[in-house]
Amino acid sequence: MKRKVWKLIARPDGTNFEEALELVEEDISDPVNGQIQIKLKIISMDAGTRMWMSDRQDSYQPPIDLGSSMVGVCLAEITKSSNPSFKEGDLVRGFGEWADFANVDSESFLVLEKGLDHDEAYLSALGLNGWTAYVGVMEVGKPKKGENFLVSAAAGATGSLAGQIAKKAGCRVIGLAGSQEKCDWLVNDLGFDIAINYKIEDLDSALKKHCPDGVDIYFDNVAGDILDTVMQNLALNARIPLCGLLAQYNKKGAKLPGPDNFDQLLMKRATITGFFCPDFLDDGPRIESMLSEWYKEGSLKFKADITEGLENVLISYKKIFTGENIGKTLVKL
Amino acid sequence: MKRKVWKLIARPDGTNFEEALELVEEDISDPVNGQIQIKLKIISMDAGTRMWMSDRQDSYQPPIDLGSSMVGVCLAEITKSSNPSFKEGDLVRGFGEWADFANVDSESFLVLEKGLDHDEAYLSALGLNGWTAYVGVMEVGKPKKGENFLVSAAAGATGSLAGQIAKKAGCRVIGLAGSQEKCDWLVNDLGFDIAINYKIEDLDSALKKHCPDGVDIYFDNVAGDILDTVMQNLALNARIPLCGLLAQYNKKGAKLPGPDNFDQLLMKRATITGFFCPDFLDDGPRIESMLSEWYKEGSLKFKADITEGLENVLISYKKIFTGENIGKTLVKL
Repeated sequence: MKRKVWKLIARPDGTNFEEALELVEEDISDPVNGQIQIKLKIISMDAGTRMWMSDRQDSYQPPIDLGSSMVGVCLAEITKSSNPSFKEGDLVRGFGEWADFANVDSESFLVLEKGLDHDEAYLSALGLNGWTAYVGVMEVGKPKKGENFLVSAAAGATGSLAGQIAKKAGCRVIGLAGSQEKCDWLVNDLGFDIAINYKIEDLDSALKKHCPDGVDIYFDNVAGDILDTVMQNLALNARIPLCGLLAQYNKKGAKLPGPDNFDQLLMKRATITGFFCPDFLDDGPRIESMLSEWYKEGSLKFKADITEGLENVLISYKKIFTGENIGKTLVKL
Repeated sequence: MKRKVWKLIARPDGTNFEEALELVEEDISDPVNGQIQIKLKIISMDAGTRMWMSDRQDSYQPPIDLGSSMVGVCLAEITKSSNPSFKEGDLVRGFGEWADFANVDSESFLVLEKGLDHDEAYLSALGLNGWTAYVGVMEVGKPKKGENFLVSAAAGATGSLAGQIAKKAGCRVIGLAGSQEKCDWLVNDLGFDIAINYKIEDLDSALKKHCPDGVDIYFDNVAGDILDTVMQNLALNARIPLCGLLAQYNKKGAKLPGPDNFDQLLMKRATITGFFCPDFLDDGPRIESMLSEWYKEGSLKFKADITEGLENVLISYKKIFTGENIGKTLVKL
C-alpha cells in the first residue's frame, strides 16, 4: 500500500515553506508491535511546530531531521490495529504526520467519544488550544472578578478560547486582532468586551483609554512589539502568561530580545510565566470534561478556517503567520 | 536650632552625585501635630533610591523634587516628641532624610527593641535588606530542597542574606560577586557552596560547569547582561525573583531592554516576578521575628561597610554603584 506524506527537505527561510517541504509518495506496511494504522481526517496547523523546522537545539523539542516527515496534531480513524485496545473504526487524536495514512504508536493516541456536532472541535475547543487557553487563563493567569484581561492574537485558535474562558471567570476581556472582521467576531459572537484593531489603532493610546488602571492579565501569544507596549500599561501585580512567540518564529537566529520596559516588571511587581500545556497532562481529564461541558452548552465557541486536501497543507499553514486565518486553521483530508 | 541636610539640586548624571546634591544648614523647629524629632545615628545607603533622583515618573515612587531633601532609611533616637506613644530616648527606624536631625511623622517610624550587639543589624539583617531577602527567596522563589539557587550581587546587603536564607531552605547556593575577597567571604564565612567571580570567569561556562542541570532559582539584583547569560542556563520551571536593576539605575532614559534569550522563559516554562518588600508589610511581625531569631543564633551574618560623618555620605553612596562595598553600606553620624 502507498501513502502520501510531507517531508522536510530544507530549513525554511521565513514563510517560504514551498522550498522546505515536499509531498512524496512512499510505501506503508501493516502496523506491528502495538502500532495502529490511521487514516487522517483533519490535521491541525500550529505555530509552535514552526520552531521544529529550524535547526535550533534549545527549544522544547529537538529539530525535525531533514528528510523526515513533518508532524502535527491530527484527528484520525483507525484503519488497522496491532493493539487489541484500539479498534478499527475508532476515532483518535494524537501527534501524527502531515500524511493521508500513517503507522503510529497507539500509546500516544487517545480514543475519543464520537458524536460531536463538528469534528473540528476535537482539534480546537476540546483539543490542545482549549487546554492551552484553560491552563494559561486559570492556572497561570489566576483571574479575579472584574480584572482587565487582555489577549493578543485574540481571533486565533487559542486566543479566542482564552478570552471566552476569562469572561467566564468574571474578567473584563479585551482582544487584540488585525482586522475589523476579526474584531467584530470577538465582540459580537464571542462576547469580548472590547476588541482593538492594532493595525489601525495606536495600541498604547487604546490601552490607556480602555484600561486606565492598567492590564491585570495579559495572555501573550506573540511577544515582540506588542508585549513592549503592554509592558507600559500593566496594573500592579499584573500576570503575563506567555503562551507563544508568534512574532518571532520566522526570524533567523530565533533570539528574541526581551521586552523594552522590562523594568516595569519590578515597578509593577508583575510576573511573566512561560507555560506549555503538555505539562498539565495529569490534570487532563478534569480540564477536558470542563471544556466539553462548556462547548456542549454553547458557551465556548470557535471558528475553523478549513482548507481541503493534503496537497494544500502549505496554503493553510502559511495563514497562521500572515494572519489571514480567523480561528482555528485546519486541513481536512 | 539648626540642622544639616542634603538637598537634591539637580538630576545626577551617572554617579556624579557631587553636582546633584548639596549639604546645607537650615532651621529646625520643635515637632508638632504628632511628629517626632529624631537625631540620626545611621543612614542606610540603598541603590533603589537612585531612581528617585531621576525625573522618571513611572517608577514605584515619584521623583524627589529639586530643592527637596534626599531621603533614606535610617536608625535614629528620639530627641523630642509631640506624640505620647513615642518617648524621648526611644530607638526608631523608618524613612528619614540624609540629615543629622529631622522632624518626621511618627506613624512611619517603628520603635525598636534595644540591645542588639550591633546597631547596624537594624538596617541590614533585621531591616529592609533582611525582609527583601526573605520575601524574594521564600515567597517568590519558593525553594525546594536540593535546588540550585543563584544570586547576583551576592556580597551586597540583600544578596548575602538571600544566599544564607536559601541555604536554610536546603538549596545549593551559588553567589556571583566581583572580587576574590567577596567570593572568599561568601564561601568561608557565609556558607555559600560556590562563589563565581564574574569579572574574571566566563559566566556562561561557569554556570554550565556548576549547574549542568540548570539554575532553579535566580535571585536577581542587577538584570542586564548577567540576566541574559543566566537565561541561557535555566532549569525547567525556573523562578526568577527580580529584586533590583542595579545594572540599570545610572543609565540615562532608564529604559532597560529585556533579556536576550527572552524566549527561554517559554522553553523552560520559567517565571520572572518583580517584587517589592513593602508589599509584604502585613506579614512583617512574622518575618521580623524569624530574622531576629536567626540573627541572634548567629546563622544570619552580615558585614557592614561603614563611613563616618554626614559630610561623607556621597563617598558611601557611590560605593553601591562601583561595587567597592562588601555587605551593607552605611553612614554613621
